[in-house]
Amino acid sequence: MFEIKYKDACGRIGTLDVNGKKLETPYVFPVVNPNLLEIAPKELKKLGFNAVITNAYIINKNPELREKALKLGVKKLLDFDGIVMTDSGSYQLYGYGSVNITPEEIISFQAKIKSDIGVILDIPSKPDIKREEAEKELEETLKRAREASKLEARKKILLVSTVQGSTFLDLRERAAKELAKLNFDVYAIGGVVPLMESYRFTELAKIIIHAKRYLPLDKPVHLFGAGHPMMLSLACALGCDLFDSASYSLYAKDGRYITEHGTLHVSEMNYAPCNCPICSGHGLKEIKEDSKLLALHNLYAIKGEIERIKEAINQNSLWNLVGQRCRAHPKLLEALNAVLSGEYEKNFEEMEPATKSSAFFYFGKGCMHRAEVVRHAERLKNITPSAKSLVLLPYRQYYPSKTGSNEKYSVCYLSPIFGIIPSEVEEVYPLAQHIFTLPIEEYQKHMMKRAAYEYMKNFSHVFIHNSLRELGIEGEEITSDVQKELVRNDEIKLFGIGDYLFGKGAGKIIFENCTVKYAKTKKMRQVFDKKRNLIATIRASDGIPIFTKQGTLKLKKLKFPRSRVVLKKDEEVENFIRKGKNVFAKFVKDCDSDIRAGSEVLVVNEKDELLGYGKAVLGAREMLAFERGMAVEVRFGFED
Amino acid sequence: MFEIKYKDACGRIGTLDVNGKKLETPYVFPVVNPNLLEIAPKELKKLGFNAVITNAYIINKNPELREKALKLGVKKLLDFDGIVMTDSGSYQLYGYGSVNITPEEIISFQAKIKSDIGVILDIPSKPDIKREEAEKELEETLKRAREASKLEARKKILLVSTVQGSTFLDLRERAAKELAKLNFDVYAIGGVVPLMESYRFTELAKIIIHAKRYLPLDKPVHLFGAGHPMMLSLACALGCDLFDSASYSLYAKDGRYITEHGTLHVSEMNYAPCNCPICSGHGLKEIKEDSKLLALHNLYAIKGEIERIKEAINQNSLWNLVGQRCRAHPKLLEALNAVLSGEYEKNFEEMEPATKSSAFFYFGKGCMHRAEVVRHAERLKNITPSAKSLVLLPYRQYYPSKTGSNEKYSVCYLSPIFGIIPSEVEEVYPLAQHIFTLPIEEYQKHMMKRAAYEYMKNFSHVFIHNSLRELGIEGEEITSDVQKELVRNDEIKLFGIGDYLFGKGAGKIIFENCTVKYAKTKKMRQVFDKKRNLIATIRASDGIPIFTKQGTLKLKKLKFPRSRVVLKKDEEVENFIRKGKNVFAKFVKDCDSDIRAGSEVLVVNEKDELLGYGKAVLGAREMLAFERGMAVEVRFGFED
Repeated sequence: MFEIKYKDACGRIGTLDVNGKKLETPYVFPVVNPNLLEIAPKELKKLGFNAVITNAYIINKNPELREKALKLGVKKLLDFDGIVMTDSGSYQLYGYGSVNITPEEIISFQAKIKSDIGVILDIPSKPDIKREEAEKELEETLKRAREASKLEARKKILLVSTVQGSTFLDLRERAAKELAKLNFDVYAIGGVVPLMESYRFTELAKIIIHAKRYLPLDKPVHLFGAGHPMMLSLACALGCDLFDSASYSLYAKDGRYITEHGTLHVSEMNYAPCNCPICSGHGLKEIKEDSKLLALHNLYAIKGEIERIKEAINQNSLWNLVGQRCRAHPKLLEALNAVLSGEYEKNFEEMEPATKSSAFFYFGKGCMHRAEVVRHAERLKNITPSAKSLVLLPYRQYYPSKTGSNEKYSVCYLSPIFGIIPSEVEEVYPLAQHIFTLPIEEYQKHMMKRAAYEYMKNFSHVFIHNSLRELGIEGEEITSDVQKELVRNDEIKLFGIGDYLFGKGAGKIIFENCTVKYAKTKKMRQVFDKKRNLIATIRASDGIPIFTKQGTLKLKKLKFPRSRVVLKKDEEVENFIRKGKNVFAKFVKDCDSDIRAGSEVLVVNEKDELLGYGKAVLGAREMLAFERGMAVEVRFGFED
Repeated sequence: MFEIKYKDACGRIGTLDVNGKKLETPYVFPVVNPNLLEIAPKELKKLGFNAVITNAYIINKNPELREKALKLGVKKLLDFDGIVMTDSGSYQLYGYGSVNITPEEIISFQAKIKSDIGVILDIPSKPDIKREEAEKELEETLKRAREASKLEARKKILLVSTVQGSTFLDLRERAAKELAKLNFDVYAIGGVVPLMESYRFTELAKIIIHAKRYLPLDKPVHLFGAGHPMMLSLACALGCDLFDSASYSLYAKDGRYITEHGTLHVSEMNYAPCNCPICSGHGLKEIKEDSKLLALHNLYAIKGEIERIKEAINQNSLWNLVGQRCRAHPKLLEALNAVLSGEYEKNFEEMEPATKSSAFFYFGKGCMHRAEVVRHAERLKNITPSAKSLVLLPYRQYYPSKTGSNEKYSVCYLSPIFGIIPSEVEEVYPLAQHIFTLPIEEYQKHMMKRAAYEYMKNFSHVFIHNSLRELGIEGEEITSDVQKELVRNDEIKLFGIGDYLFGKGAGKIIFENCTVKYAKTKKMRQVFDKKRNLIATIRASDGIPIFTKQGTLKLKKLKFPRSRVVLKKDEEVENFIRKGKNVFAKFVKDCDSDIRAGSEVLVVNEKDELLGYGKAVLGAREMLAFERGMAVEVRFGFED
């Protein structure tokens, strides 16, 4: 029911299939109060909101609405032909302590009124309650979820169950694990509104991360009650897909104007900091006097931010957007710092694309825990230095030259972000695509020094550039004699790239006796084998080799399961792939766990016979989890 | 011709009077090419651009345009009834090295074609040229400016002269000083386009700051060739008022889509991250295929950012906007770090409002150099501790209680941003209105420790809260006996506020024998003298006393010129003020140099007779510099 189109950070643009209609995520459902339709749902649709959420409990409680909804369906009731999600009364339970309907009744009612997406009646625990209370409430929520998962009504609607657990992260994890077993269509994270109201974004972020760890990857995750543009990008980067918000309307009644940086009181405003059709078409004065116009502006503010987030995912620049938004309030920055503290490195690394179309921007310490940095540290271990002597140079903004490693000297750069960068891989993303500010911070200097000494252990002689002495790094001076000999050896360079991308020893297997042709920009362009066959083109944007058929055969020499996506046994599918068709996730049986979205991969059958070569659209864990959508965009197939 | 409405950082919202038309700043002039009017200037006006800039040199060179312009005027030529600024050909000089027109001819031509704002033909020096060359070119620019300032044509148009000096900051300063003497209507900063093109924002920022230091405060400053939304807020915060940009159109031809975070290539876009009428009304596909639509979007992107900047100035939250924008690119962050390095503290302190309507958000080290922090360090020196014993407590998010300084104990808080905060002033902005993130950084800990030890020198006994021992601060333990005695003394509290705001000893003069009435929120609300006359109301938002007539008389006891705005001798004006009318800048003769926009001030005549009391709209330097606009918003006058 859910498939992924684009990915960045833990965020994703996906499509949820809802009764034949498509809902593109990330998405914010505007909350529609069935009692007072101030902004008609069909007006919302004109604004671009093709799905709304309303409250089945409220409809059920009001005899008139109830009758109409049962007779005509909730869509006719709302006069809306888009997707309708209904909430269950949990929020009322939360507010008033009890509701006069059973969990089973409310689900069957949601099905009867033909809601597209229904929610089970869970117990929303408040933050900061006693552990025993949170545990007890969670057990009740889980019991209800187990019962709901068996109901007949489930077949008629998509059903949402909600992760609870108050502010106890281990309870949130337990909730996620247990609910994951029940195969709901959408998973929600609930009981977080009070955290958002008091700007406790750090705790919110941790709750999301801990819940996401155990929720199924192939299901959308809904963050209940969230919809403020200032925090949406962070929530998306952590992997939330769906949101709902009544704030557009509640805030408007209170004279509050939503922006992507926060909320303003219209009474204190002199300028409308917004280009939306409402703000462009009406004066601020009119907006101040008309809460409906203000609500419409608020909706545009939400929609605009969702579009920004989507384009940032598309451009692989989501962290940059998040970094900016998290400077809208110190409590958001605190949350970002917690997210990028290193504790969650692995969560992000697994989900982040293998290569990005945007440069890596360094904005502070937290960036040192991003997947790109973590991966480099790992991959660095794959490279066997080409010589016993190291020549260490300061990192410069990338400028390919004829300097490089050879049999006598292993030439490396020292970067304030990535530490040691062997010259062999200087063109590979993000080593040539990272931008940082000067002066270099103390923290970074410390890390550079550490990285240098760690790496220097591999060598019997170390020569260092004089400017590195400032860091306290010791080594012999690079004499002009040494300098003359720092001539790049193409084969050694290729071995380095191969080892870096495909593991220790891979470079020699793939690139032995190969030669390189350079572009006018002095960047590597093509790789040929000894018979002058083109085996790979080096992609200019990220320095990654894209193999030809000849090259793919060399890549295939790497030991199973390296770079493999293994298909389930299915002759028809095999033939499709051999003809160059794409691989869909449901046919993936297994794969190399190092594969990430954007990795170049071999598609093989269970006998490890080569079927095709292409670009992974999903990461390893996702390929195995998803039943829908593309897993590998195949560049070419191998006919039998 | 130019007056100020709102201020924040060094930024300002102003109004420039141009031949009877008003131009509100900050403003970006769209560049209109007279040869190809792709977007008709009157269309620009519909978008909200009521002023454009075109090129007089190009018009002059083309016989047809020249004739038409001379006959009908440049506005008819462009079919535009707004404000028209014309450039002089300096840009062409910059590009081609020479132009075939004299400086005098081009100015008189601009006057003849009835341009509203003309530019002198200066010599735009490139960055990184040799110093001698830059000096030589600057001397020529200055010579031309001196000549231009004497021309008859000057009377007909507003004239702009341009600060040059390449990348030499002292030459930029010299240029500003010399041009300031010539009383031009607008001052521009030129020769910076190559810096912006290569993201050398740090050098750009320094050039602006050094030029602004010596440019007259009462004239708008134009940053030539700047108009990208990602850097506009920074330039405005540094005091630039006017901008011009052809990028909306040039970028569109090149398929580039402007956003407030940077520029995207439409070919790589999948979503339009924008709510403007173009992006909302047309699909992205249409925009991709129609460069005029793209140009219109780009214009909206610029306009939207200008409105955001204006509202941020209005809300006193400009630094927060700048902080967010400067995370769009590491080179912008580098510039912001340079601006907030401490080197320019004084430049900002002089211009920053006395109190703000937005809380002080801490986002990093640079914030420690903001005016609020610098001022606190200065003002702290005014407060005489109430006792020989200090009780030092950790700073808590503000919560007024009955704890406070008295004759036996001086109670202070230690804040990671402001260091020592005497409990007397705990309610005064920004001491109760600052928000920071945890954990506290090493740098801040160091500063806290230093501040604590510095302040502890004033005392013979020091008691510290246990949690402060972590910082390495030493002192006796606060026993329950001590704790019992930490009862706030209202008079001492008032003395502290008075000293803090009006200088050492002022508190006693104003508030002796006064009592305080508290609000339900436990905040101070009103101050009464011993006869129970209300002398001041404490403003809830910032803890500042707003005096009554009775209180004003007490304030008046402070030694001249403390808190005074002294008017020029003019009986009529005096009578107006006595009747409660506002003070206009042109009547200000002198003032207390500590006055800042938002300060509560006494309005007096040359004999120091009290005429009125009110709120300063401008800072001290501005009051003296401006000939237009309001200087003091008078709350009430004192009849003779």
